[in-house]
Amino acid sequence: MTDSTQRTTAIILAAGLGTRMKSRLPKALHRLGNQPMINHLITTAREVFDDIVVVTGPDMPALEEAVHPYRTVTQVERLGTAHAASTARELFGTGDVAILYADNPLITAETMKRLLAARQEGASLALLGMRPSEPGRYGRIVEEQGRVTKIVEFKDATEEERRIPLCNAGVMCAGAEDFRNWLANVHNDNAQGEYYLTDVVEMAAQNGAVICVEAAEAELAGVNSRAELAQAEATLQNRLRDAAMDAGVTLVAPETVFFSTDTLLEADVTIEPNVFFGPGVTVRTGALIRAFSHLEGCEVGEGAMIGPYARLRPGTLCGAHSHVGNFVELKNVELGEGAKANHLTYLGDASVGAATNVGAGTITCNYDGVFKHRTTIGERAFIGSDSILVAPVTIGDDALIAAGSVITQDVPAGDLAFGRAQQTLKTGRGIQIKQSLKARKEQG
Amino acid sequence: MTDSTQRTTAIILAAGLGTRMKSRLPKALHRLGNQPMINHLITTAREVFDDIVVVTGPDMPALEEAVHPYRTVTQVERLGTAHAASTARELFGTGDVAILYADNPLITAETMKRLLAARQEGASLALLGMRPSEPGRYGRIVEEQGRVTKIVEFKDATEEERRIPLCNAGVMCAGAEDFRNWLANVHNDNAQGEYYLTDVVEMAAQNGAVICVEAAEAELAGVNSRAELAQAEATLQNRLRDAAMDAGVTLVAPETVFFSTDTLLEADVTIEPNVFFGPGVTVRTGALIRAFSHLEGCEVGEGAMIGPYARLRPGTLCGAHSHVGNFVELKNVELGEGAKANHLTYLGDASVGAATNVGAGTITCNYDGVFKHRTTIGERAFIGSDSILVAPVTIGDDALIAAGSVITQDVPAGDLAFGRAQQTLKTGRGIQIKQSLKARKEQG
Amino acid sequence: MTDSTQRTTAIILAAGLGTRMKSRLPKALHRLGNQPMINHLITTAREVFDDIVVVTGPDMPALEEAVHPYRTVTQVERLGTAHAASTARELFGTGDVAILYADNPLITAETMKRLLAARQEGASLALLGMRPSEPGRYGRIVEEQGRVTKIVEFKDATEEERRIPLCNAGVMCAGAEDFRNWLANVHNDNAQGEYYLTDVVEMAAQNGAVICVEAAEAELAGVNSRAELAQAEATLQNRLRDAAMDAGVTLVAPETVFFSTDTLLEADVTIEPNVFFGPGVTVRTGALIRAFSHLEGCEVGEGAMIGPYARLRPGTLCGAHSHVGNFVELKNVELGEGAKANHLTYLGDASVGAATNVGAGTITCNYDGVFKHRTTIGERAFIGSDSILVAPVTIGDDALIAAGSVITQDVPAGDLAFGRAQQTLKTGRGIQIKQSLKARKEQG
Repeated sequence: MTDSTQRTTAIILAAGLGTRMKSRLPKALHRLGNQPMINHLITTAREVFDDIVVVTGPDMPALEEAVHPYRTVTQVERLGTAHAASTARELFGTGDVAILYADNPLITAETMKRLLAARQEGASLALLGMRPSEPGRYGRIVEEQGRVTKIVEFKDATEEERRIPLCNAGVMCAGAEDFRNWLANVHNDNAQGEYYLTDVVEMAAQNGAVICVEAAEAELAGVNSRAELAQAEATLQNRLRDAAMDAGVTLVAPETVFFSTDTLLEADVTIEPNVFFGPGVTVRTGALIRAFSHLEGCEVGEGAMIGPYARLRPGTLCGAHSHVGNFVELKNVELGEGAKANHLTYLGDASVGAATNVGAGTITCNYDGVFKHRTTIGERAFIGSDSILVAPVTIGDDALIAAGSVITQDVPAGDLAFGRAQQTLKTGRGIQIKQSLKARKEQG
Repeated sequence: MTDSTQRTTAIILAAGLGTRMKSRLPKALHRLGNQPMINHLITTAREVFDDIVVVTGPDMPALEEAVHPYRTVTQVERLGTAHAASTARELFGTGDVAILYADNPLITAETMKRLLAARQEGASLALLGMRPSEPGRYGRIVEEQGRVTKIVEFKDATEEERRIPLCNAGVMCAGAEDFRNWLANVHNDNAQGEYYLTDVVEMAAQNGAVICVEAAEAELAGVNSRAELAQAEATLQNRLRDAAMDAGVTLVAPETVFFSTDTLLEADVTIEPNVFFGPGVTVRTGALIRAFSHLEGCEVGEGAMIGPYARLRPGTLCGAHSHVGNFVELKNVELGEGAKANHLTYLGDASVGAATNVGAGTITCNYDGVFKHRTTIGERAFIGSDSILVAPVTIGDDALIAAGSVITQDVPAGDLAFGRAQQTLKTGRGIQIKQSLKARKEQG
Repeated sequence: MTDSTQRTTAIILAAGLGTRMKSRLPKALHRLGNQPMINHLITTAREVFDDIVVVTGPDMPALEEAVHPYRTVTQVERLGTAHAASTARELFGTGDVAILYADNPLITAETMKRLLAARQEGASLALLGMRPSEPGRYGRIVEEQGRVTKIVEFKDATEEERRIPLCNAGVMCAGAEDFRNWLANVHNDNAQGEYYLTDVVEMAAQNGAVICVEAAEAELAGVNSRAELAQAEATLQNRLRDAAMDAGVTLVAPETVFFSTDTLLEADVTIEPNVFFGPGVTVRTGALIRAFSHLEGCEVGEGAMIGPYARLRPGTLCGAHSHVGNFVELKNVELGEGAKANHLTYLGDASVGAATNVGAGTITCNYDGVFKHRTTIGERAFIGSDSILVAPVTIGDDALIAAGSVITQDVPAGDLAFGRAQQTLKTGRGIQIKQSLKARKEQG
């Protein structure tokens, strides 16, 4: 028995192409909770294991990049799960090793901990099992007196074995030394000519007790097609929704709210229907996120009101009690306490002081085609509707911008700026133009 | 037996803090169908009972305000449901009294009527029961020959009693005089030291027949957590969706449409997916509400077309056959028959005459930072794109506003107004600027 | 037996008023998958049958128009299904005839083919049956040794017959000549005084074998109310979602994506939650359609990124790797390869060259109140924010439009154009105005 005080390692098998996904993307890079499946699994595994090693397939530079800085080894030929695990054998370390799968991304840290604990409490090998509602063609786990004797593939199983409800999920954990020895003894003398990881179970049963740790079917569900990916996403989203509600967040219609795994919501936040949270969002207590809003990489302060139809993009910080209204996009913006941008506005690379009001249709010109520039607006300023702020530009505290102005130069505190043409009237010309257009139309 | 011709009273127990809600808000103020739960329940109870009394907890000014002008009494100490009911005993009146719960907000008027009728047809006390799919730890209703003999708490129930499928919902109705007498005799000699309302059932059974009125589990479901609040909202929304479809409204995807309890939709209205109805909306026959629209406090006329992405805010009246298009916000606007505002527009505090066309990007400047002002536009006018109407301002019938104008003064009927700068060209300067920016970038 | 090499005909009964729909619209015109139910059924039937004939009711010009150019006959009096079918008897042709129903719109082509094949393999008549989870009051199909002997209406059925799980869906197929003969012999000597199509089954059983072809309940579900219409829409949408995922499309939340039956999505397209596809949309491989987008009659090129909150209207072609961002509406626009229109923009009747950047708040004035005009923008141009392009107008390659300009005249390639007022400052006037407004407010 290996010394379980040593560093533990999770080996994640991720070489699969995922033919049934019908994709040019390696299966492990398909996304779940707004990140590649593999990163989702790594985040969970890091809570439990000291080291992570990813087994990739050949020609998967995007996958290697995605899992950086974790170590990767490449399985050049695809000769089965035992072969894949064996590819990483030099990186097993000396402590316990668990074999995980990139396409089983929903296993919780709690389940991984139970697996590792079962191993460390004396099992020669611990494996994960489940009792699916439709066991179908899963391999069955044969137990005697609480100990696993073997895993039998469905096609090789007797009628009696096929009635066993406990199915193999493929995930297992054992000492590094043992694993290396067992893997060296797996053969490929089967119909497919592949090396199967399940073969180590019988070997382990000869070394000592093999223990099955059970988990829910939804947690162990595999992702082999886009439909299964959508099911996994639904399982994950339901976990995130339940966790939010448990933490004191009101979700008016939970099934219409989409979270990222890192979304942080304080108690007494209210989320209306149809809200999308990309990665990196924090919302403080008392804030209201109204329907049809879309948030990424931003923080929403206490008591702020966002939406409906607000789009907050990365780098945005909405101060306490600030308001962001409909058809408003903020990108890399600091909106001060109590400031408002309520209608049809684009602010990019800007800071807006406390209690400032940004009128409808305001646009910052932050991009000249090559460089991005910054707009700075002071406190208690009033930006008249449909103003254009050509960055770089600074508007002082208490300044007032007349509606419809193009602002290209700084406006000192307390000043009024305008840049718009005088209104002119042409008597009777409005109806004349209309009549002549209509006449032209009638003539064809 | 009390004279049932007297005024009836609903006592709503609303003192609960709702610890499992994890909220600073009293439980009764959490929202359902776009209004506090307590108001939802009051609206239903008013259809059945003459008077309403709300039992609040101490320090709940927001709750007292929400239920205004209904009478409230404060339960200073929380000593159990019988104690809470007893707090209101001076306001029981002389007719029948029903005890309701703010956190059982989904009971229908029809069920309340059945409860009251059972009482008035001769029961000493009528109570609500349900047969939950998972009876769990609910108190069981013990009946003999169609009459209730007692309610037994789960923990005190025998094995046989625990097999009774009929569970106590807590709601009951009896004569005021009887109720007062029974409540005076409830004791707190139990493990929790609380006064339980269920104790009156046995007393009532000694006075006469206690009758159980059954209702569906979903109707009697309690709201004790955010997850249960979301379930209650789903139940309510499904009721509202079914009622709309029964009335001849097409909901392309009912599960994506969110109503308020007062939403009024005439037959042959069509609602596309993802539409949100805040309070106070009426939609006339033949109107089409397209996807991603958000309506509150507004009326949509016959045959009008709203959305996609239209936001109608309170005080808005869209005339028959008017069109409101994408990314358009109307607040306190009267849009005349056949008038159109189809693209990226903000109209606030405005009236727009029949057959007028409001161009893309039009904005009314209705707010000067302190006051709101009104914009009045006549019939058959044409507001060129990206115009700014600085209120207060009036545009006459058949007037024409040139695109991009800032309009600060009234425009008489039939006139053409413009207020924009002349176009100037700098030959070759466009590409020069780009090249010099790129050169600067390359130099770092 | 009729010669099955002759032209086959589908007779679609569509005369129903659909009282339970509570609508002024004929039932067959209620919409499914963004088109009238009848057109949905015709599209399927055309895959299987050579000719289509629609039986309409009197005074249904809109229905006749919708099914144009298919032949229609009018059932003047509504005397039952056999009477309706009989109305079309002159148009039965000489080959096989199937009777379909406009309010059974979800039957697949595969099922229709199985029905026709059963007939052509020797049945005198083939009919569709189903095994509903709740058979209720459906007519039952009585079989003996794999052959149907009769259909018995629920009210006429014996207790034993009512236990038959196989129910009649009404759809049937036989030789034209046989059908005409049988229909001539159907009588109306029943309680309702109607001519029932089911009566032909016994006659057919005397001519030869009547075969029941089974299909899923969801496929044969009838649409008699708005709720059933919504269920049919859900069934259809689920089919379309499953087909998209099978074809290698990622749907992050399938239940929030709405397709038209003709939506074409290539492999490795990703669709975020809450996207609506109207008719006529094609999306090429690698494209990303972000949340809250709405597409109709458009093509999205390889690797393009659309949304969130993008609205693509008919006639729009987004080139490969182009970007369309939030609150942007494109109507009849050709957007070149790599071109971008990312924020709060309306482009109508325009072409935008490759690699051109359209700034935030840009608006094309394509409508003068009577005529629509075209805007043409070259390659690598830069349209400054909040520009107004008054069509007809042409902007050359590499041209630069200064932010906030109103462009009424052509801009040659490489030139800079601007049309905006000079900025002016009034020192201290901003804060003065605010203070005087506040003072006025305080004075009331």
